[in-house]
Amino acid sequence: MKNTIGDSFAITIFGESHGEYIGCVIDGLAAGIKLDLAKINHDLTLRRPAGVISTSRIENDDFKIISGYFNGYTTGSALTIIIPNANTRSKDYESLKYLPRPSHADYAANMKYHGYQDYRGGGHFSGRLTAALVIAGSIAKQILENHNILVGSHIQRLAGIDDELFANNPIEQIKAMNDKLFAVLDNNKGDLMVEAIKNAAANKDSVGGIIETAVVGMPEGIGEPWFDTVEGILGKMIFSVPAVKGIEFGAGFKMSDLKGSEANDPFAYEHEKVITLSNNSGGINGGITNGMPIIIHTAIKPTASIAKPQKTVNLIKKENAILEISGRHDPAIVHRARIVIDSVVAIGLVDICSMHYGTDWQRG
Amino acid sequence: MKNTIGDSFAITIFGESHGEYIGCVIDGLAAGIKLDLAKINHDLTLRRPAGVISTSRIENDDFKIISGYFNGYTTGSALTIIIPNANTRSKDYESLKYLPRPSHADYAANMKYHGYQDYRGGGHFSGRLTAALVIAGSIAKQILENHNILVGSHIQRLAGIDDELFANNPIEQIKAMNDKLFAVLDNNKGDLMVEAIKNAAANKDSVGGIIETAVVGMPEGIGEPWFDTVEGILGKMIFSVPAVKGIEFGAGFKMSDLKGSEANDPFAYEHEKVITLSNNSGGINGGITNGMPIIIHTAIKPTASIAKPQKTVNLIKKENAILEISGRHDPAIVHRARIVIDSVVAIGLVDICSMHYGTDWQRG
Amino acid sequence: MKNTIGDSFAITIFGESHGEYIGCVIDGLAAGIKLDLAKINHDLTLRRPAGVISTSRIENDDFKIISGYFNGYTTGSALTIIIPNANTRSKDYESLKYLPRPSHADYAANMKYHGYQDYRGGGHFSGRLTAALVIAGSIAKQILENHNILVGSHIQRLAGIDDELFANNPIEQIKAMNDKLFAVLDNNKGDLMVEAIKNAAANKDSVGGIIETAVVGMPEGIGEPWFDTVEGILGKMIFSVPAVKGIEFGAGFKMSDLKGSEANDPFAYEHEKVITLSNNSGGINGGITNGMPIIIHTAIKPTASIAKPQKTVNLIKKENAILEISGRHDPAIVHRARIVIDSVVAIGLVDICSMHYGTDWQRG
Amino acid sequence: MKNTIGDSFAITIFGESHGEYIGCVIDGLAAGIKLDLAKINHDLTLRRPAGVISTSRIENDDFKIISGYFNGYTTGSALTIIIPNANTRSKDYESLKYLPRPSHADYAANMKYHGYQDYRGGGHFSGRLTAALVIAGSIAKQILENHNILVGSHIQRLAGIDDELFANNPIEQIKAMNDKLFAVLDNNKGDLMVEAIKNAAANKDSVGGIIETAVVGMPEGIGEPWFDTVEGILGKMIFSVPAVKGIEFGAGFKMSDLKGSEANDPFAYEHEKVITLSNNSGGINGGITNGMPIIIHTAIKPTASIAKPQKTVNLIKKENAILEISGRHDPAIVHRARIVIDSVVAIGLVDICSMHYGTDWQRG
Repeated sequence: MKNTIGDSFAITIFGESHGEYIGCVIDGLAAGIKLDLAKINHDLTLRRPAGVISTSRIENDDFKIISGYFNGYTTGSALTIIIPNANTRSKDYESLKYLPRPSHADYAANMKYHGYQDYRGGGHFSGRLTAALVIAGSIAKQILENHNILVGSHIQRLAGIDDELFANNPIEQIKAMNDKLFAVLDNNKGDLMVEAIKNAAANKDSVGGIIETAVVGMPEGIGEPWFDTVEGILGKMIFSVPAVKGIEFGAGFKMSDLKGSEANDPFAYEHEKVITLSNNSGGINGGITNGMPIIIHTAIKPTASIAKPQKTVNLIKKENAILEISGRHDPAIVHRARIVIDSVVAIGLVDICSMHYGTDWQRG
Repeated sequence: MKNTIGDSFAITIFGESHGEYIGCVIDGLAAGIKLDLAKINHDLTLRRPAGVISTSRIENDDFKIISGYFNGYTTGSALTIIIPNANTRSKDYESLKYLPRPSHADYAANMKYHGYQDYRGGGHFSGRLTAALVIAGSIAKQILENHNILVGSHIQRLAGIDDELFANNPIEQIKAMNDKLFAVLDNNKGDLMVEAIKNAAANKDSVGGIIETAVVGMPEGIGEPWFDTVEGILGKMIFSVPAVKGIEFGAGFKMSDLKGSEANDPFAYEHEKVITLSNNSGGINGGITNGMPIIIHTAIKPTASIAKPQKTVNLIKKENAILEISGRHDPAIVHRARIVIDSVVAIGLVDICSMHYGTDWQRG
Repeated sequence: MKNTIGDSFAITIFGESHGEYIGCVIDGLAAGIKLDLAKINHDLTLRRPAGVISTSRIENDDFKIISGYFNGYTTGSALTIIIPNANTRSKDYESLKYLPRPSHADYAANMKYHGYQDYRGGGHFSGRLTAALVIAGSIAKQILENHNILVGSHIQRLAGIDDELFANNPIEQIKAMNDKLFAVLDNNKGDLMVEAIKNAAANKDSVGGIIETAVVGMPEGIGEPWFDTVEGILGKMIFSVPAVKGIEFGAGFKMSDLKGSEANDPFAYEHEKVITLSNNSGGINGGITNGMPIIIHTAIKPTASIAKPQKTVNLIKKENAILEISGRHDPAIVHRARIVIDSVVAIGLVDICSMHYGTDWQRG
Repeated sequence: MKNTIGDSFAITIFGESHGEYIGCVIDGLAAGIKLDLAKINHDLTLRRPAGVISTSRIENDDFKIISGYFNGYTTGSALTIIIPNANTRSKDYESLKYLPRPSHADYAANMKYHGYQDYRGGGHFSGRLTAALVIAGSIAKQILENHNILVGSHIQRLAGIDDELFANNPIEQIKAMNDKLFAVLDNNKGDLMVEAIKNAAANKDSVGGIIETAVVGMPEGIGEPWFDTVEGILGKMIFSVPAVKGIEFGAGFKMSDLKGSEANDPFAYEHEKVITLSNNSGGINGGITNGMPIIIHTAIKPTASIAKPQKTVNLIKKENAILEISGRHDPAIVHRARIVIDSVVAIGLVDICSMHYGTDWQRG
């Protein structure tokens, strides 16, 4: 389905980095959901580049809702958002048409689209489009909050520096992270991370990291055993976010080194509710929620755009070449990506829940 | 879509561990594909439990194609496969109805299906159903081989023991793995792994591991930038395989510790063809194939069914309880899972390629 | 999606007329629906050929549920049904491989499947497969009855002979039709119709007709304004039934000759409920149910298989030819098709309602 | 999927009659299709209200392509079109919130959306949105023309006045219709139809009609036997067009009165190509194209908005009421609807062909 995802609650994304608008269509919204536009703007702020640790491109994200919204409430029709692109410097990118940037989509896109792609600023592949995902995700999070389901992330690791992990039931931590521009549990570690990003920028280089995401409050029994597993649906959403190269749930790759007796999460009653005494499963058994927090780790590669000279090919001359990228780029995108991860996770969860409970469930 | 996946080439899976049949419907097959049933039986052999390192349940997998196949060729109509269940011992599972096994789907299923699920032997959640995926995957691999696209896996790590990694262009390695019952590149490491599995079995415990999968020969330009990324489509397929808790492409989680200058894959010409000098991207940029081998690592948790006593709850008495699982179980499923991973990867790739090239492409 | 239809409640159909089994997979069923197998068998009886007015092929329809059903209830997993084919006489069809029957699918199929299709008895195109739709439809009707939604049809016209039309609120008429083998409101007209079928058979010819279908009890507000309109969803289901060439809702084609002042259905209160004083709209406005009965007319062409000599082509010799069909055929299928129309309508409605209300709605 | 339709070539529609923009996203476009914007504007002209026989609302349709289009060619990414709404007089519609117009969507929408719908001018249900379908359809027709597939329609009947029917191979007729504002084959009949529309307007009433559509040049073997039949796919598209109440293919409802020997289309060789000597099947057998022209008749009801006083209900006072609609309305929409029918048919055909041949087929 290419640029559309979701069965009951679906998002269609469109736009290019240097086009007039980017945006998305959100379909399958219930009627009568009151939208808090301030929350959307807040989430956009968390994604927006800020200071020396980000690109100098200024993105105001003056989004406009052009359908599906009336008198402060969703109408139940397709809700469409457009965001004008501003501050584009297309000339920076002219040469990229034939000098593909290593580990960027330039070359793969050229093969797929036979040279017709809008190559300016990464075109349709640009991280810029994640602004549309953040808006859709912010709406999805408002729907989840109507049911006391919270989604939040922090930078678990960046340039080799580890933050703490989320606690068992991280409701307060999630709320705190959703207010922070640079989302870490331990601010001292955050300072070290910022320092590492600045160093990378100074060296014309970039760094990557890992984002830890938690979902608290999901009811039990949501998801499917095959194909539409919670892991599969959220995984597909998350792999849409540029620069993601790995995803794990619960103890994830560490599980592969454990014995069954160590890895299994024992059940127990707590206040007449069934819980598990550990959460290596990350809240999911057999593709279905078990009521414990969903825990996800997402590996973000270092930004591919670096200012150092790099080996590439000249697709016109058909020979090897050296590329020096000018343009404006992020020495790290981990801190900006976390709200995007939250957003796509929230979109996926609203889809699964709407399929299970019906559309009107969204209204709370 | 629950038990169906795929847009152009689609699989519908059905059945329960202790029902009369399991099976699948394969839709979107081109007409006129000659099927090699011996290859299907060979792949089933690779999944079949064998010896002391697997469950003692004997599964003959006498599958029958009941539609879509005529005179040795696919007809272009839905191809349906049924596999009779035999050697089922349902009594082993009676108590599991109310004593959910830790880290199994029992509890989540009970919440989702309100107690109506077929609980015998894991029912619809049983790894038994992966036999149907292997058959569909074997057909998908035959289609890919018509285009010289090869898929293969080995056990990269088991119980903390590492095998070698795939070489750069692992065509011969893939072929070798597809002939081995216990797929490792280094047989000495394989012996140690088998020893570890036997030890786990002796201790009424289980072990997990990591599977490395390679796809060689994929053309450039396949996949989509958003949602239907190659990572997203393959990831969703792989997360359907029971016991998978993590997936990474290329250097994956290791990418998060690299600098951009280390992680980026430089382009170069080799024999007039564009290649990358490293393959940290795992053959995918911007969600789209770049012509290099696709490299996937999949984390498999230790089998949840262990014979040791475990803490659980009694859902009838609403109190904590101790569970001792009898039944017949695998002390490890990593060695059996690898052919399932190959299968779902192949299914996903045929779907993406059929969407791109049209259905008749499958015939080669 | 080829052989699968439905978003929340989905059917996958498979099989060929002379294969070992035909069948279907029903996915998206809620857990815990008690199935009345006697009702399914009753509905199969209504579809089964009977007496001189049908083919002499005997179809016992000894269906077997091989997954998704446990202790008398649906489990919530994919429910699969297989029906063995018996009494097949494949030799009757050998020549059809290269002598396509006029207005049959033989020629179109040959072009689509490049000669690889199973041509015996119409293969995958055979009306035989509607037995699987009837079973799925019977289950769908049981779900709808849990919500007092009734579906039923009668032969409105056959060989130019008109039955009465359904009354305004045809609950009793629907119940009566669902008990009749030859479904007409006016038995005298039914006798004339049977006579016309016998005459056609005697003349080696066939006749067609129109089926009127009513759905009573649908809640208001179901359906979508664009694409997933109730007309579009039911229309697509109905056009799947072989021999259907036209569909209209409410006054349908007659609406095109009316003035707006004649065609519009005025609203009024009746017992504090909003109704319309006429029902030219057939229960649907803007693609969405308005609470009045849904009224559908379906045009069924005369059976294409007739014993008279017909002009065709010899695809091997590439020349014109004369075809005389032997085999066993129906001089009319209108009377058998009505339960198939009911079935696909019911399947479509359960899908729309499940999407709207969530899956558990099905349990009633 | 609500506001999205299509598997390989998909359209997402959005907007409300009195919102800021309406529009659509076209996904699954191949890269490198040169678009003729003049043709799009020409098609919009054919839909635009004109003179006394249409509404006096002026719609300039100054559409803007905001993504997926670069240097005159499609890029292969989602192509998004927005059309500003102008000349809206929302006050005309205030009372409709609680006085639903007979045979309009007002009441059904109110039940579906719990009163949150944008009721102004019909909101998301407005025929205004078909402008977006016409743009998408114009692009689809350009793709089909790359393969010499032509789509065209004329007014077969209006207010009881019959035009001629399309000839056997109506290539020239289709071309002529695509140039005419009021599409009839016989201009004298067209004059009578215009007269009838004027009379209806003078009487504060409206008229309906039938549109005949032909598709010439479709290759054989396209479509599926079940569910994704050509009739089902085109039927679902056409039922999305407001005011459509019936659809038939080929001889359609007339088939129900024919004998098999009259209805069957004999095959014959003509210039070494297989044709049928009649075309009662309308170019489709068994859901699949047979190479003959596809013939469709679509019943359009009289415009529901009429100026005569009508019976309705007052949803606030919960009592019967009389409604007099002011606003600006069409005394007939048949002449404007035909280009919309062409558009949705073209969209459906590009989807089916793209699924069959792959996306790059579109480029020609």
